[in-house]
Amino acid sequence: MRKIYLDYSATTPVKKEVVEEMLPYFTEHYGNASSIHSFGQDAKRALEKARTQVASTMGASADSLYFTAGGSESDNWAIKGVMHANKAKGNHMITCKIEHHAVLHTCAALEKEGFEVTYLDVDSEGLIDLDALKSAIRPTTVLISIMFINNEIGTMQPVAEISKIAHEHGVLFHTDAVQAYGNVKIDVTSMGIDLMSISSHKIYGPKGVGALYIKKGIKIQNLIEGGAQEKKRRAGTENIAGIMGFAKAAQMADDILSTHAQKLIQLRERLVKGILENIDYVKYNGHPTLRHPGNVNVCFEFIEGEALLLSLNAKGIGGSSGSACTSGSLDPSHVLLAIGLPHEIAHGSLRLTIGDFTTEEDVDYTVEALKEVVQKLRLMSPLYDRIQGGK
Amino acid sequence: MRKIYLDYSATTPVKKEVVEEMLPYFTEHYGNASSIHSFGQDAKRALEKARTQVASTMGASADSLYFTAGGSESDNWAIKGVMHANKAKGNHMITCKIEHHAVLHTCAALEKEGFEVTYLDVDSEGLIDLDALKSAIRPTTVLISIMFINNEIGTMQPVAEISKIAHEHGVLFHTDAVQAYGNVKIDVTSMGIDLMSISSHKIYGPKGVGALYIKKGIKIQNLIEGGAQEKKRRAGTENIAGIMGFAKAAQMADDILSTHAQKLIQLRERLVKGILENIDYVKYNGHPTLRHPGNVNVCFEFIEGEALLLSLNAKGIGGSSGSACTSGSLDPSHVLLAIGLPHEIAHGSLRLTIGDFTTEEDVDYTVEALKEVVQKLRLMSPLYDRIQGGK
Repeated sequence: MRKIYLDYSATTPVKKEVVEEMLPYFTEHYGNASSIHSFGQDAKRALEKARTQVASTMGASADSLYFTAGGSESDNWAIKGVMHANKAKGNHMITCKIEHHAVLHTCAALEKEGFEVTYLDVDSEGLIDLDALKSAIRPTTVLISIMFINNEIGTMQPVAEISKIAHEHGVLFHTDAVQAYGNVKIDVTSMGIDLMSISSHKIYGPKGVGALYIKKGIKIQNLIEGGAQEKKRRAGTENIAGIMGFAKAAQMADDILSTHAQKLIQLRERLVKGILENIDYVKYNGHPTLRHPGNVNVCFEFIEGEALLLSLNAKGIGGSSGSACTSGSLDPSHVLLAIGLPHEIAHGSLRLTIGDFTTEEDVDYTVEALKEVVQKLRLMSPLYDRIQGGK
Repeated sequence: MRKIYLDYSATTPVKKEVVEEMLPYFTEHYGNASSIHSFGQDAKRALEKARTQVASTMGASADSLYFTAGGSESDNWAIKGVMHANKAKGNHMITCKIEHHAVLHTCAALEKEGFEVTYLDVDSEGLIDLDALKSAIRPTTVLISIMFINNEIGTMQPVAEISKIAHEHGVLFHTDAVQAYGNVKIDVTSMGIDLMSISSHKIYGPKGVGALYIKKGIKIQNLIEGGAQEKKRRAGTENIAGIMGFAKAAQMADDILSTHAQKLIQLRERLVKGILENIDYVKYNGHPTLRHPGNVNVCFEFIEGEALLLSLNAKGIGGSSGSACTSGSLDPSHVLLAIGLPHEIAHGSLRLTIGDFTTEEDVDYTVEALKEVVQKLRLMSPLYDRIQGGK
C-alpha cells in the first residue's frame, strides 16, 4: 500500500546526510566532551563546531546557544528559569491560550507556586491582539512567552512587534520556535528575541535534541543541575552524535530555506484548494497567509476527528487531529476552542503537514482519499443526513 | 600511535549492535510515538518493547520505568520531584558528601528554596556509616539519596541495608545507579529501591538517553511539563532511536553481566598490582573489594593530576583525574577530600576505568607508561627531590 506521511509538524524523518554525520560519533569519536584526553577533545571540538553552526542559522553568537534534550525541555527551562531567577522584579508573566502544552503546563505549574500568568486570547485566525498584550503588562511582569508559529493551526505571530512591546516595558521575551525554526527565517538579533526554544526532530534531525537560545546577560536558573557542561547551565554528558545530527540538519535547512518554504507553500495551496473545491461543510483554520508554509488545518463538519484519522490511516495516509503531544485525549483541541470553534466542529479537525519529501502526487492522492472518506463518514451521521434531506 | 581508552566511567563507545538497532528508527520508523497513524504506532510499539527490556534487567515492571535524557536529568527529577511533591510530610533529605554533582548541586538548589539537607560523611574507603544514617533521620525526612557506586573511587554502598533503614523510618530511597547499572546486578524489588537513575552512555548505548525507575505509588512532581508522553510525567517527543539503542545496550549488558564483571575485575587487579608494585608513593583509593569492577583510582604523591593526564594522553592513553563532569575545575575532587586525603595528595589523582574493549596488553602498556611518566614528572618536583635525597 502507498504510504503518505503528512505529519511533519509531529516529527520528521532524519535525512540520510544527517545520519551519516552522526555515525562516527557513536563508535569512533565517542569521548566525553568534558574529558581532557584526545578522545574527549575530539568530541569537544565537534560540539563547539555544532554550536557555531546552529547559532549562525539564527544570527546568534555561539556562546548564547545551549543544547538541551528538545523543545519541551527548552520551554520548561526558559520559563521556569527566568521566572525563578527574577523574583526580585516580579511574579507575573504573559502568554497566550494557544501555546503548546510545554508552555501552558509549565505556566500552570508556576501558578501552583504562586506566580501569576495572563493568558491572552487570540482572534479567529489565531493572532494575539497587540493592544491587549500592552494592557496586560504590569510593573511586576517579568516575561512574555508567545510562540512563533502555532503547532496546530500554523498561525505565525508578529514576533518582532511583540519583542518591541516587551522591551519598551522592560520585559523579557521568549518564543517557542519549534515549528518555525527551519521553515521561516529567524534572526534573534533583529527580531529582538531574548530566549528561543528550538528542536532537532522537526527539521529532519534526530529526536532527543534541541536548544535554548539565551541572550547574553539574561538571568536564568538552571533546570538540570550537576556537572559543568554548557557553561554550568545545563548538566549532563553532551549528546554529541545527536548534536552533530542537529547541526547538520540545521545547516541543511538554512541552506535551502527559501526554496523549501516556496515548495511547501505551493503544495499546501494545492492541498487546500483540493479540499475546499471538493468537499463541502469544511472550515480552513488559521491565518490564510501568516502561517507555517507546510501547515493545513481543516475542520469537517459532522465528522469525528479520530474516525477520520483511522480511515485515512487505512488508506496509508498519516495525518493528525492536532498536536501529537495531546493525542489520546478526548477533549477537543484548546487551540481550536481558542479561535472560537464550537466543540462539535473542533472535534472534526484534521492537521496535514507537508514536508521535504511530500510530492504533488501525495497531495492529489490525499485529496481523493479525503473526498471518499469524508463522504463515507458523513453518511453515518444523522445530522448530516437531516441537513442533506433539507437541501 | 597506540590509542588506549581507560575512561569507561566517563562514557563508553556505542557497540555496533546498538548502532544497528538504532538505525531504522532514524529514517524508516521515524514516527512520533504519540501519533495514532501507523508511522506513530510503529514507534509506540518499539518504545514499549524497549521499556519492557530495560525494566526487566532490574526486576522492575515496565510501567514503573520512565525514559529521560540521561542520568543528570533523572537525578534532578527524582530529588526535586519527590521533595516538592511531599512537602506535607517534611522538608528534609539525606545524602552523602561523595555524590555526583547531579545530586549535590540539586540538593544545593533545594537548600536555596528552604529545604534542609544532611550530607553524611564517608569513611576512608568511601562508605557511609549506617548508624550515622539512622541518627540523621528526622520526622520531617522525606528522602534518602545515596549513590550505588561512586563515579570517582568506585566504592559500592550497601544499598539494600540503606533502603531497609529508610523504610523502617517511612522514608523514600533514591539511588544514582549510573555507574552501577550494567556492571553489577541490580534488583530494585529485592533491594528495596524506590527511585533509581540510570544512563545509557555508560553501558555502550548512545548519549542523551537515560531512565528513572519510580516505584508505583510514589508521589513525584514533573521536572519537564508539557505533552502527555511517559504517562504525563515527562514531556517531550520520545527519542525512539536513542531509547532502542539504550534497550539493546541494556539487554546486552544484562546477558553478559557476570562474565563482564569477572573480566573487568581481573584486568583491574592486574592494573592495580602493576601500579603498586612498580611505583612508590602511591595510594589506591576506594574500597578494596566493594567497588566497581572496572574502577582504579590512585593518587601519586608529588605529582599534579593534570600534568599526569596530559603526559599519558601524549602516549595515547585516555584517563581521568576523577569525574569528567567537573573537569576544567582547579579544585581537588570533593570525593577525595571526603575520604580524608589532604589537598596536595588529592591533586595527584588518576582514575583509570576499564571496559569491555580493554585488553591485558592495554593494561601492561599503561603500567609501563605510568612508570615512565610518573618518574619524569617527579624529577621536576622539588619536594620529591628532597625526599629522595633523604633516602
